[in-house]
Amino acid sequence: MNHNDLENLLQDVRSGTLSVDAAIPKMRSLVQDASDFVHVDLDRPRRCGQPEAIFGEGKTADEIIVILQRLHQAGQNALATRLSPEKAEAVHAATPGSVWHRRARIVHLPQVPPAQPREVRGTIAIVCAGTSDLHVAEEAAIVAEIYGNPVERFWDVGVAGIHRLMAHLPALREASVIIVVAGMEGALASVVSGLVSTPIVAVPTSVGYGASFGGVAALLAMLNSCAAGVGVVNIDNGFGAAVMADRINRRLDTT
Amino acid sequence: MNHNDLENLLQDVRSGTLSVDAAIPKMRSLVQDASDFVHVDLDRPRRCGQPEAIFGEGKTADEIIVILQRLHQAGQNALATRLSPEKAEAVHAATPGSVWHRRARIVHLPQVPPAQPREVRGTIAIVCAGTSDLHVAEEAAIVAEIYGNPVERFWDVGVAGIHRLMAHLPALREASVIIVVAGMEGALASVVSGLVSTPIVAVPTSVGYGASFGGVAALLAMLNSCAAGVGVVNIDNGFGAAVMADRINRRLDTT
Amino acid sequence: MNHNDLENLLQDVRSGTLSVDAAIPKMRSLVQDASDFVHVDLDRPRRCGQPEAIFGEGKTADEIIVILQRLHQAGQNALATRLSPEKAEAVHAATPGSVWHRRARIVHLPQVPPAQPREVRGTIAIVCAGTSDLHVAEEAAIVAEIYGNPVERFWDVGVAGIHRLMAHLPALREASVIIVVAGMEGALASVVSGLVSTPIVAVPTSVGYGASFGGVAALLAMLNSCAAGVGVVNIDNGFGAAVMADRINRRLDTT
Amino acid sequence: MNHNDLENLLQDVRSGTLSVDAAIPKMRSLVQDASDFVHVDLDRPRRCGQPEAIFGEGKTADEIIVILQRLHQAGQNALATRLSPEKAEAVHAATPGSVWHRRARIVHLPQVPPAQPREVRGTIAIVCAGTSDLHVAEEAAIVAEIYGNPVERFWDVGVAGIHRLMAHLPALREASVIIVVAGMEGALASVVSGLVSTPIVAVPTSVGYGASFGGVAALLAMLNSCAAGVGVVNIDNGFGAAVMADRINRRLDTT
Amino acid sequence: MNHNDLENLLQDVRSGTLSVDAAIPKMRSLVQDASDFVHVDLDRPRRCGQPEAIFGEGKTADEIIVILQRLHQAGQNALATRLSPEKAEAVHAATPGSVWHRRARIVHLPQVPPAQPREVRGTIAIVCAGTSDLHVAEEAAIVAEIYGNPVERFWDVGVAGIHRLMAHLPALREASVIIVVAGMEGALASVVSGLVSTPIVAVPTSVGYGASFGGVAALLAMLNSCAAGVGVVNIDNGFGAAVMADRINRRLDTT
Amino acid sequence: MNHNDLENLLQDVRSGTLSVDAAIPKMRSLVQDASDFVHVDLDRPRRCGQPEAIFGEGKTADEIIVILQRLHQAGQNALATRLSPEKAEAVHAATPGSVWHRRARIVHLPQVPPAQPREVRGTIAIVCAGTSDLHVAEEAAIVAEIYGNPVERFWDVGVAGIHRLMAHLPALREASVIIVVAGMEGALASVVSGLVSTPIVAVPTSVGYGASFGGVAALLAMLNSCAAGVGVVNIDNGFGAAVMADRINRRLDTT
Amino acid sequence: MNHNDLENLLQDVRSGTLSVDAAIPKMRSLVQDASDFVHVDLDRPRRCGQPEAIFGEGKTADEIIVILQRLHQAGQNALATRLSPEKAEAVHAATPGSVWHRRARIVHLPQVPPAQPREVRGTIAIVCAGTSDLHVAEEAAIVAEIYGNPVERFWDVGVAGIHRLMAHLPALREASVIIVVAGMEGALASVVSGLVSTPIVAVPTSVGYGASFGGVAALLAMLNSCAAGVGVVNIDNGFGAAVMADRINRRLDTT
Amino acid sequence: MNHNDLENLLQDVRSGTLSVDAAIPKMRSLVQDASDFVHVDLDRPRRCGQPEAIFGEGKTADEIIVILQRLHQAGQNALATRLSPEKAEAVHAATPGSVWHRRARIVHLPQVPPAQPREVRGTIAIVCAGTSDLHVAEEAAIVAEIYGNPVERFWDVGVAGIHRLMAHLPALREASVIIVVAGMEGALASVVSGLVSTPIVAVPTSVGYGASFGGVAALLAMLNSCAAGVGVVNIDNGFGAAVMADRINRRLDTT
Repeated sequence: MNHNDLENLLQDVRSGTLSVDAAIPKMRSLVQDASDFVHVDLDRPRRCGQPEAIFGEGKTADEIIVILQRLHQAGQNALATRLSPEKAEAVHAATPGSVWHRRARIVHLPQVPPAQPREVRGTIAIVCAGTSDLHVAEEAAIVAEIYGNPVERFWDVGVAGIHRLMAHLPALREASVIIVVAGMEGALASVVSGLVSTPIVAVPTSVGYGASFGGVAALLAMLNSCAAGVGVVNIDNGFGAAVMADRINRRLDTT
Repeated sequence: MNHNDLENLLQDVRSGTLSVDAAIPKMRSLVQDASDFVHVDLDRPRRCGQPEAIFGEGKTADEIIVILQRLHQAGQNALATRLSPEKAEAVHAATPGSVWHRRARIVHLPQVPPAQPREVRGTIAIVCAGTSDLHVAEEAAIVAEIYGNPVERFWDVGVAGIHRLMAHLPALREASVIIVVAGMEGALASVVSGLVSTPIVAVPTSVGYGASFGGVAALLAMLNSCAAGVGVVNIDNGFGAAVMADRINRRLDTT
Repeated sequence: MNHNDLENLLQDVRSGTLSVDAAIPKMRSLVQDASDFVHVDLDRPRRCGQPEAIFGEGKTADEIIVILQRLHQAGQNALATRLSPEKAEAVHAATPGSVWHRRARIVHLPQVPPAQPREVRGTIAIVCAGTSDLHVAEEAAIVAEIYGNPVERFWDVGVAGIHRLMAHLPALREASVIIVVAGMEGALASVVSGLVSTPIVAVPTSVGYGASFGGVAALLAMLNSCAAGVGVVNIDNGFGAAVMADRINRRLDTT
Repeated sequence: MNHNDLENLLQDVRSGTLSVDAAIPKMRSLVQDASDFVHVDLDRPRRCGQPEAIFGEGKTADEIIVILQRLHQAGQNALATRLSPEKAEAVHAATPGSVWHRRARIVHLPQVPPAQPREVRGTIAIVCAGTSDLHVAEEAAIVAEIYGNPVERFWDVGVAGIHRLMAHLPALREASVIIVVAGMEGALASVVSGLVSTPIVAVPTSVGYGASFGGVAALLAMLNSCAAGVGVVNIDNGFGAAVMADRINRRLDTT
Repeated sequence: MNHNDLENLLQDVRSGTLSVDAAIPKMRSLVQDASDFVHVDLDRPRRCGQPEAIFGEGKTADEIIVILQRLHQAGQNALATRLSPEKAEAVHAATPGSVWHRRARIVHLPQVPPAQPREVRGTIAIVCAGTSDLHVAEEAAIVAEIYGNPVERFWDVGVAGIHRLMAHLPALREASVIIVVAGMEGALASVVSGLVSTPIVAVPTSVGYGASFGGVAALLAMLNSCAAGVGVVNIDNGFGAAVMADRINRRLDTT
Repeated sequence: MNHNDLENLLQDVRSGTLSVDAAIPKMRSLVQDASDFVHVDLDRPRRCGQPEAIFGEGKTADEIIVILQRLHQAGQNALATRLSPEKAEAVHAATPGSVWHRRARIVHLPQVPPAQPREVRGTIAIVCAGTSDLHVAEEAAIVAEIYGNPVERFWDVGVAGIHRLMAHLPALREASVIIVVAGMEGALASVVSGLVSTPIVAVPTSVGYGASFGGVAALLAMLNSCAAGVGVVNIDNGFGAAVMADRINRRLDTT
Repeated sequence: MNHNDLENLLQDVRSGTLSVDAAIPKMRSLVQDASDFVHVDLDRPRRCGQPEAIFGEGKTADEIIVILQRLHQAGQNALATRLSPEKAEAVHAATPGSVWHRRARIVHLPQVPPAQPREVRGTIAIVCAGTSDLHVAEEAAIVAEIYGNPVERFWDVGVAGIHRLMAHLPALREASVIIVVAGMEGALASVVSGLVSTPIVAVPTSVGYGASFGGVAALLAMLNSCAAGVGVVNIDNGFGAAVMADRINRRLDTT
Repeated sequence: MNHNDLENLLQDVRSGTLSVDAAIPKMRSLVQDASDFVHVDLDRPRRCGQPEAIFGEGKTADEIIVILQRLHQAGQNALATRLSPEKAEAVHAATPGSVWHRRARIVHLPQVPPAQPREVRGTIAIVCAGTSDLHVAEEAAIVAEIYGNPVERFWDVGVAGIHRLMAHLPALREASVIIVVAGMEGALASVVSGLVSTPIVAVPTSVGYGASFGGVAALLAMLNSCAAGVGVVNIDNGFGAAVMADRINRRLDTT
């Protein structure tokens, strides 16, 4: 319900240009049709704090290019995720000014100049169990950075050699929020959560085989963490973890 | 690794009472055995910000009473969750000063006087889809309150009549973190997340029958939310949601 | 958004009693708070054509009684489903004028006099595979009747003796909509759908054991029907099938 | 049981050409063999209201061409679904007069001139959550149109931005039946069903990843809809949804 | 389609009492309504070789008694399966002449005198892995005997001590058909099938715990037997195994 | 335990060439090592009635050729199943005298002249629901024929048009055993079993999509058949069905 | 194959009392019938190193008593597992000399005097995550002790407070084999395995709720351990873990 | 915690170079940072007895080459598993001195000269059900050999022809540990375990189709073995089985 439209309508009622009887259906329609012009959900930054991101699987490069440009022209910070190398290359080539994050499988079309990063934000720590999980961890890291958060990466610190994690405890305890990325048995989320007071966003990955069932083993482990304080996102959903972490971190910012 | 023990040992080395050779194994053992006396994990408030809570299922009333008192005597804020009425009654009767939250199935044994609630904390909003989900929602609410958070409850606002939710949007947008509790198809988490910029902690409940598979339908829906920014906890895990929300809210407090 | 409230507000604006600036927030709040008074969703008949029904599992008899009476006092056709004999007995005793449908596990509190059944409605045929499925089939039948539909029952016509079904084909072809209730392998839905041009609402039941997995076998069979034209509801969801069938049949009524 | 065959036989009995004893086994065989000539089920329009459609997966282009032509020569409205681009191209090229609906993956071989669309039919509204679900939604739309129904499309109105749906409510309330197509968490079906009195046919799609399990998350959500009045078809089964909707809409037609 | 009805109708046509035009719809209806009188499926012995058996779960003792007597009065060999001790006792007490097979959980109401067992039948061997599987194995054995088959029991010969099975090989090789009953890992079916040329009917049982998932482990093992020649029935379905074995054995009889 | 070896050993004991003490370990070893020479299980025809068949998936063409020839040289009726077109072509080319059954995906290397088919065998009827299931049905048919059974095929008689099945009832009732092959909802097995007294071997196929879960829907339907007398084999296991049917049919032969 | 029987037979052959022709079938039968007398598998200690244990679920107290005594009379070390308190009490009362291990749910009927524990055995360490897992851990511990192994218990050392585990590392590294017992997310097995060179036997427990699915989450985690060297047994199978550990430890003993 | 560092620090304290207050934080940091330099976990041989192995799936050839060389340069016994032929060829070509085990899909880069195999080790027997399981069995065999264990292979001894297994019993009983590799119904583990007193490490394989669900059938069978003494690893995890077996065998070595 746009403020100006509403004001104009009420002015017309007051001035007698519009009768009360005629105003009622317009009012109703104003409420119901308010977002009619939004096909790409350009209203999301206002509602949710960040623009719509394009989920690149199941869309053609052409479709992605159109939506990226639409978001960009609306002055928003546009990005597309889960792009195969071929698709990413096509999208990148067609959108001057875009950045292709290969490992993260993201193409980002930033506004120039960028919005200033906010000063007071805490750091998002991203902890990753193994090198095979890295494209998911990088997806989380890049998205968090695009959204303006300082990110610290802790790669290859799985529980098979738990001393590697222990060495980073002080740094982890400094973070505002920790994203834990792990496949196979996903034990890392429980171990980290038991050592810190920070909120944990856990991302199970599909890394594994056999009875990992495409990430289900890690997903179940994270949901059943014996150390509470863990919120879980979908398998391989680095993007979703970054949005959750950004929402947490942004709160800090605004208080 | 207790500070005093360490200081004493080092003093002995300095004074020559203890040789370096003899000190090394003691040192090692000090490090390794440091938490030996911790059977109940009394160190958790320091590490994780809140004391250990007792998961009441699969423990006898007697066991619960012992651990509650142990935590209480250590000056901690002790609570036990998921207590059947019979068990809760026994625990409550045996622990003077305790409070029994019937709907939440919690017995709480507070310190007197309580720690002062921190002033600057935001509010944790708890949104619950249906009346059958209320014991889970209340578990989240009571735990969040015990941990010192202001809580606002929005009960019975499921998507079957979505206007009920819409009416509360302004209040929801004020909260620091929103816990969404829903069973059956669990759609509420997606709908709320698409309307706010707040981090969402989603709790699927086992309310439903047939193809809800004890809460799996709601769990999957929440993990697959088309609106990102949702962290999911285990089915019926009101406690875990409260811990996650408290960690998020506490961060606000300390910056 | 109530018509009178809106009219009054606009009249106040026109008369100058209310300034445009003051009107805007009231307008917003009118839209947002419109259904604030609805705790029990008393608006459902207007939106969805039938009143809210009370799902009796997971609610106490006392809670059910309160909601039944609330709906009744609002002039609505109140009913509660899936009541155990004990719960049903208590609810029935506490609500004078109510009817207890034992096999269907329903207590119904009708308005007196009832709304007139609409003349032009077609018949809802309910086909049930075995006698163990009857409480689900009766739930569908009673709800359909309470909602004002003529119902014809075809009990015990499973595919193990398919001639029993064949004998009823002419009657089935007369119905506006057919509800098929079957457990075990759920083949009945496919067989019926291949013989008629009527929309089929299929209800898998939890009747069976072992690899029926509480109705999953029948559910999957119905979802995979080789004869299209079948819409499936949840396992044992006789109520939901009746609502779907009523919506289909009501359409006939209103054209 | 062919009318002419039966009449001839009875004439022979009356004329004495055939004794009663000899007629009995012929009669039996007539009943049992009646549909012997039906290899393609050419009898389906009479029984079920619409001709057999060819499920294109797992059949070769050559097989599909033969069956399409067979149906066409029998004067029926022939169509094949779920054709890969390669298969569709081959089928389309080999069947003059056919129409290839690319996004819907359908080749249609219509009768010329077409049967007149019936005047009194209501509209089938098709609501689709995201652009990745469109080939399923289009399959439903095209099949519904081929079967003679007016169709109204509402694309890209998922619950992540629920105002987009709200804007279309009046139009949705006008429809005779609504098909809801959604992947991921499938919440759209519940939200729509809670807002209208129309029968809803819900189609879960395989859009998603990880814990969507190829559409299972959306399927379960739809089966567990807290707003009754939803009949669910198989994952990605746009065709089946259209047949169900057509059966509902056709009923309106014939009363 | 009753022979007399058909003859009468044709006589009427021949005599001119009935016109050909009038005869046609009667004919059709005769075919369709032919089995209208069958409520309990009394026709099953003719079609399937054995009478309907009553599945006792989910039926009351009273219902079982009525159907048992109905079958008995029709001269059939009546039996009810899966009766709890309480239900069995009630049924047994109310049906004079009945026999209660406690371990098999069956009440049998035989005809007196019984039909003569056929001389030429082969033996049905029943092999059972463990003592916990015995009620399923006995269900198979008693049903097979009630249907007139010689039965040889081989109890407690699981693969944990495979020599016990080996000792019975010569006898097993003599049987016409072997029913293998096993829970846990269900390996017995594969081992037996690899040693004989007899058809194997395999019954997985729900004996086990944890990852046996109520018999699923044994079911899957039997379906995946590396030694072909195994037909599997539902978990705990001793009755179904006996029917399958009886059909196989009966064939021998009639050639 | 070879007869000659045993006789020689006993002769040696009798003649005194071998002492009793020395004979005992030899005896033991004779029992244990008896089948040491069998690498390809050439003993299977004697034990199980048919030679080992080669499961072609996961083996190279070269491996298959070697085993086929090994079996052939041993005078056995050699066949390999589930061969891709490429593999089949290579195997066929390398084994003169072999026959490639394309639709059944089998290469057969028969003995010349073949063993005489036994006269008295009954017929194996194979009933197939849809044309997409045909490669599985043909696998069953060809294997049954290779093993010397008369086979009658009933293709494309699914329950969506049940009259097609009814037309074949008399022929089906004549068969010794019926193999039912069906995907999707697999209802055909129940329908057929309720109409005949013949043992049914049911083969679920992976034909379907979405909630068919690669054949699981059909598998569960067949295991839960409300009409007993059905033995189920693995999904797509036409071979196993043929072996089961052959064992049943062979029994007839030998009495 | 009993030594004496075999010797007697060979002596008879040598002496001529038995002809070679007559000896052959006796020989065969001796081999095949050798274990005919074994109903309880009294041969297991010789083959597998430990006597048969009685799985108490699904057996009556009377059946358990009979088998316990049978094993005892054969001079074996008899025990029954998974006994409910009622069953255990009955068995214990009826078997003088027996010991009832309440928490482990075991009744043990030892030989008097016991076999001497072997001197050289290593220690079996049992590590248990939480107090709710203790009955499973105690089952493992008691069985291992009954079989003669020194056992060291490490209770309540879950990963939520990982310092508790670290404190015991030196002791764990001394053990011959470590049994890890954990429910919920089962992370403990991976963490331990990454810290030692000892073989790990992992026991998932059914402790947990919701998405633990009765122990499946822990089971999958253990099967997917990123630290190799873990062998997993069934959910709650403390007995099986003890047998595996005993076999490993016994090997040490005998070299 | 490095011995030298600790000694130096304590010497500094004693000498007064370092005050006690200053020593405390250093001490703490020493403990926490001790393994900071380990990126590739070069410490694993000391902790776990064998070096880290490279899981080749999801890593590029280049990444594998770098890690192999890193391990090699550190004097460790480097190997990479699960390499596709293309990846293996690249890795093999780039690492002079490496050995490519084709069937096992392993590239091994040994130290020259190799460590001397320990004399006293027992043998690891590897039993494999079918030829399709061989790449998994070979993975186990090669890894066990690389780790210095004598290995004996028993290929193609599945339970379909159980005499083949029986022939090898004496050799199997000699082994220190037996690895059983089987797909399909996985019965081999139970059969072997019931015949020996050796610890069994069971590896389910993904060999099979349909209801084998990619190895789940075999996995469940092995977890539910009626013959205890079986530890199970993940589906197709030949590597893990070898590590478990090596740990068991190594224990023998060190006593």
